[in-house]
Parts: sequence; structure tokens; C-alpha cells
Amino acid sequence: MLLDDLDTPFLALDPAVLERNLAAGARRAAARGLAWRPHAKTHKSLAVARRQLAHGATGLTLATVAEAEVFAAGGCDDLFLAYPVWAAGPRADRLRALAGRARLTIGVDSADGATRLAAALRGAPAQVLVEVDSGHHRTGVVPDRVGAVAAAAVAAGLEVVGVFTFPGHAYAPGARATAAADEAAALETAAAALAAAGIEPRVRSGGSSPTEGLSPSSASRYPVSETRPGVSVFGDAQQVELNAAGFDACALTAVATVVHARDGHAVLDAGSKTLGADRAPWASSYGRLPAHPDARITALSEHHATVSFGDAPVPRPGERVRVLPNHVCNAVNLADELVVCEGATVTDRWPVDARGANT
Amino acid sequence: MLLDDLDTPFLALDPAVLERNLAAGARRAAARGLAWRPHAKTHKSLAVARRQLAHGATGLTLATVAEAEVFAAGGCDDLFLAYPVWAAGPRADRLRALAGRARLTIGVDSADGATRLAAALRGAPAQVLVEVDSGHHRTGVVPDRVGAVAAAAVAAGLEVVGVFTFPGHAYAPGARATAAADEAAALETAAAALAAAGIEPRVRSGGSSPTEGLSPSSASRYPVSETRPGVSVFGDAQQVELNAAGFDACALTAVATVVHARDGHAVLDAGSKTLGADRAPWASSYGRLPAHPDARITALSEHHATVSFGDAPVPRPGERVRVLPNHVCNAVNLADELVVCEGATVTDRWPVDARGANT
Repeated sequence: MLLDDLDTPFLALDPAVLERNLAAGARRAAARGLAWRPHAKTHKSLAVARRQLAHGATGLTLATVAEAEVFAAGGCDDLFLAYPVWAAGPRADRLRALAGRARLTIGVDSADGATRLAAALRGAPAQVLVEVDSGHHRTGVVPDRVGAVAAAAVAAGLEVVGVFTFPGHAYAPGARATAAADEAAALETAAAALAAAGIEPRVRSGGSSPTEGLSPSSASRYPVSETRPGVSVFGDAQQVELNAAGFDACALTAVATVVHARDGHAVLDAGSKTLGADRAPWASSYGRLPAHPDARITALSEHHATVSFGDAPVPRPGERVRVLPNHVCNAVNLADELVVCEGATVTDRWPVDARGANT
Repeated sequence: MLLDDLDTPFLALDPAVLERNLAAGARRAAARGLAWRPHAKTHKSLAVARRQLAHGATGLTLATVAEAEVFAAGGCDDLFLAYPVWAAGPRADRLRALAGRARLTIGVDSADGATRLAAALRGAPAQVLVEVDSGHHRTGVVPDRVGAVAAAAVAAGLEVVGVFTFPGHAYAPGARATAAADEAAALETAAAALAAAGIEPRVRSGGSSPTEGLSPSSASRYPVSETRPGVSVFGDAQQVELNAAGFDACALTAVATVVHARDGHAVLDAGSKTLGADRAPWASSYGRLPAHPDARITALSEHHATVSFGDAPVPRPGERVRVLPNHVCNAVNLADELVVCEGATVTDRWPVDARGANT
């Protein structure tokens, strides 16, 4: 089958770029001596997860119990739920069942959350990492206060094996190096606090795609031990605009058709229901066109992307163009499948196994 | 089943508010003497579409061929594709098949698009409306230039029955009345141009949720004849912030759980993969909490919404809260089902039949 035999819009995956990204991800982690536990929320695909594991990933990171269920059912057996899961309702039983099917590690960031998690697991085997806020100010505790949460977890019967953080404040222009240093410092402080509370901080887990290639600022007693990049397996316009990836490292694009053209602008049939509506304050546009690096998506509706081409030639109605989503994780979650293609030929179609797995 | 028996996040639909919104939509159209053709892209649900038709809708509006296929298969037989569909590839045959199954009207906004559409239909019955730009500057032709597109469509063998527009520039603070006037003027000008080209402009179709309740600015020879509101069937935070709806007219909310709380802030488990990432420049936040009208979602990740409560009490971890998405159409498209609930009881679960129907 040819790409032209598929109606637009759809997500096209270049397996050669994917393969390079997988090898690069493994290499970056190895160069820093880190365990590599990529975040499967980006691809939600067993086919991609298996390739990550084949390239040496120690396991997967997940955001939700439902994602973990999909990957456990697909045979992935070492899973870290990097989220302060609230283990109530049916989710409590689902967590316990999951703990019986995979080597499960779960995030906690409060004493109440830890107590509830222990009650849900009822002794089922799972390890716990305490989440630390390294500057993103989302979830997680202040690094030197992990002891109280860890103590509550231990008292409830959980096995605490370390700390984790997400340095999401790396998602701002020029912030990558600072965020990487914050991450290393927060994990070191938290690990020391854990050790002071009598708990061996075996796992110090960090990572984000923008900080992935950056070395910790200094040798320390408790250096980062694990990295959890998500986006970099595919790349996206955000990574390009943060100088964390080039267009040539972007493996996934939306294939769209021009439906309207006029005076410097074209309108494509890929809108927010294909690309996602993400637009960080610093983003130049709602997505980028790798073949037209100066073009910008100036407006986005559900099924329209309005592209400004400036003084450059505007593609004609009926022409197909590739669009790099701003945030590939949300674009993938809108699709039922990833169309694997080599040149003009469709060589495979991979389901987005964990699409919509939000609970 | 109780709502508490479902793990969060999910979309909850209040059938009493829905019923009020349906009646109000029909009443607003009737008061202006308009045919009421609501846009099904908002709900993507046969259950909701059937209620709209029972309340007097003359048919449905759709954005994509795939959406139209879903609603035609579900028995809805009068469909308007309000999009300048590019009828190439498999889509050409799909359009022809669709024209054989439902009374089909299709948008065109270029001579090339019309020629291609006629070639795709190969004589299958369908009517055409020429799209006009009334100020949103997305797709559509300048109102007084519809004649050339209409002539090309007629020459290609299509039946042109009128004009349509989407006054999307109503989506800005204080812009509703101006956009409604622009819409009426553009449709009048375009209809006159069509008449001058010898084509009876029977259909003058406009409408958006923000302009839905507004009367045309003046009596004219070619007044608006049809309205196509989408969002107002459910309501959302954008409509509230544009003063086009109150919280009490919002039928659909995401049910989320607090997973983290600290100094004036809570973090919920509903993020951009549940709510969508929409945030217009004028929006106050990434969504609103009807029970906490002063709260704002100050940051949104895929599975985290960070809510600022200011000086008000912050809900505790484990508490459930309702979130009104900024743009309900994108939130619905992320869900597999709408959970119909009366009070604490789940009374039905409606599939999002056309979820992901982008092509």
C-alpha cells in the first residue's frame, strides 16, 4: 500500500529515524551511566515499547494505571508509574492486580497517598519512589522533606527504594541546563534525606527530553541513577524550538492535505483533533512544517491549520504536506494507529494500544 | 452504578441540562425563523444527535467525511459537510457512497475543489453550498466572489443551492455582536452575487455558539436561513468566558480527583489528554471549576491540572471535583464514552461514536 492510498490526516512514522532515536536514547543514558526507562505515554505503542526494551531499556515509565495495564498485558514486566496515584475506588483493586502481573514501582508524594496505596495493595509486591519537586512546582514534595512521606510509607508497609522528579521547568527557552542542574541537586538532597531516615536511596530517577543529553553538574554521593525521557523517541516541534532536537530527529509527522490556498497562506485538514492544541507561551506557532522551516501555523481549529508561508510559494490545494505537532504525546493520543512508512510505501501500521488510557 | 464506582478522569453528562440546552437551541432558531442544523462535531454521539433531531433539527452538520459516515450509518439522513472537502484518493469513493445513503450537502470554496468533487460524485446526488469568509479568515471566498466558484461547480455538474459561513471571529471578548452582523452581511452579499449569477440562493447558512442567540442586524432580501451551532449543546468554559452561556447551561464536565494539595493549590488527575490543551489568548485559564468560580487552572500537563484556589479552601487529596473544559469539542474527542448521571447515579453510558473520525 502507498501513503497516497490513505486519506489524510494521519500520523506517519519513519522507522529509520525511530531506530536512530532509539539507539541515541540508549547511548545517551549509557554515557551517563544511567538506567534508561523511557516514558511510554509518548508512543502508547507496544511495538515501540518492545523496540525500546530491545535497545536496552530497563523497563517502562507510565503515567496512569490504565497505561500500565495495557503494557503489562503486552508482556512488559517492569513498570514505573511516575505519578502520585490516588489508590481509591476500582483503581485500588486494579493496582493490586497489576502488582501481581509485573514488577511494579509506584510514585507517592504524600503520607495520605502512601497509606492509601498500602491499603490498596494489601501486601502485593510493589516498590515506591517518593516524588520530589525540583522546580517544576507540579506534584512532589520539597527535596529535604521526603523523610516524612517515606516514613509514612514504610510504616504502612511499603518498600521505599528511592526518589524521582520531573524537571518540567526545562520546557522554556534557555532553561535546559538550569533544569538539569536543579534535577540533580533535588535528587541528591532527597536521597540524602532518605538515607538520613534510614532508607537506602537506591533509585534516583529523573529525566525529561530537553534535559536528556545533559550531564549532572557535578559528581555527588547520590547522582542521578535513572532517566525517563518520553518525547525524544519521536521528537516534536517543541523539542526543535527548545534546541533539544533537530527536524532530522523527528520520526513522527502528521500527513495533511491542503484544502485552501490564498495570498501567502494555506489551510490544511489537520487541526487540533489531529495535532493537539498545545501551544506553550514561547512556541512560535501551533506546529511546524519540516519541509517549510520558515512557515508557521498561525491559527488552529479542529480540522483546519492555517499556515503562513510569508513570501515563499504556497502549496496548492490537493498537495500533501507534513506537520510536526508541537507536543507529540497529545497527537499520538488522538490517533488509533501510527502508519509506518518508508518513502511513499506503507510498510506497517501500529496500533496506539494505550490511546485514551487515562484512568 | 454510582459515579464513585468509576475511576477518574471521565466525562459526566447531566441529562437535565442537556435537555434544557436542546430545547433552548430549537427555540432560539425558531425565534429567528431559522432552520436548525446543529454541528455534531461537538458531541460525536448518535444518542445526542437523535435528541437534536427529535427537538426539530432539520439535519446535522459534520466536519469530516468520516463523521458523516458514522451518523449516516446511525440513521441520520440529512447531512451537511461544512468543509471544503478535497475529494481525492479513497475519500472520493467514500463521498460517492455517502451521497447514496443520505441527503448530502457539501461545502466548496474553490473552482478546483468543485471540479474534483463533481468528478468524485460521478452524478451521485448531492447539493453544494459555497463557503464565504465573513471575517474569520480561515476558509471560504470573499462574499462578492462566490459567483466564479458557483459557476465552476455548475459547469462541473453540481447543484449549487446557496452559501454558508462560520463567523469564528466571534470567539473573542466583545466580538459576538459584530461577528453576527458580519455573518448576516456576508451571507446577504454572497446570496445576491449567487442570484446575479443565475443561481437561486435558497440556503444562507451561518451560525456559531457565541452568535447563536443574536438576531440579524436588519431585515434583508437574503437573511440568514439556517444556523449551525455546535458547542452550545454542552457548553464549555470558553462560552462562559465569552458570556455566551452560564455555568448552569454547561451539561458536560470532567470528573477529576485531587492527587496533590499545597498552599492554595491542588493538582487534579485530568490533564490535556482529558480536557484538551485549548487555551485562547483571552481565556483566563485552561478550564474552569463550576463549584469554585474563582479558581483557575494555571498549568496543564497530560495528566495534571494545577488549580489555584487563591485564598479559598483547597480540596483535599482524594476529593473529586468537576472541571469544565475550555473547548468541549476537543474534550469529547478524547473520550470513548459520555457517562450520563443524575446526581450520584450513573443512568447511562453513551459511546462517542465518531471519536477520532478525522478523515
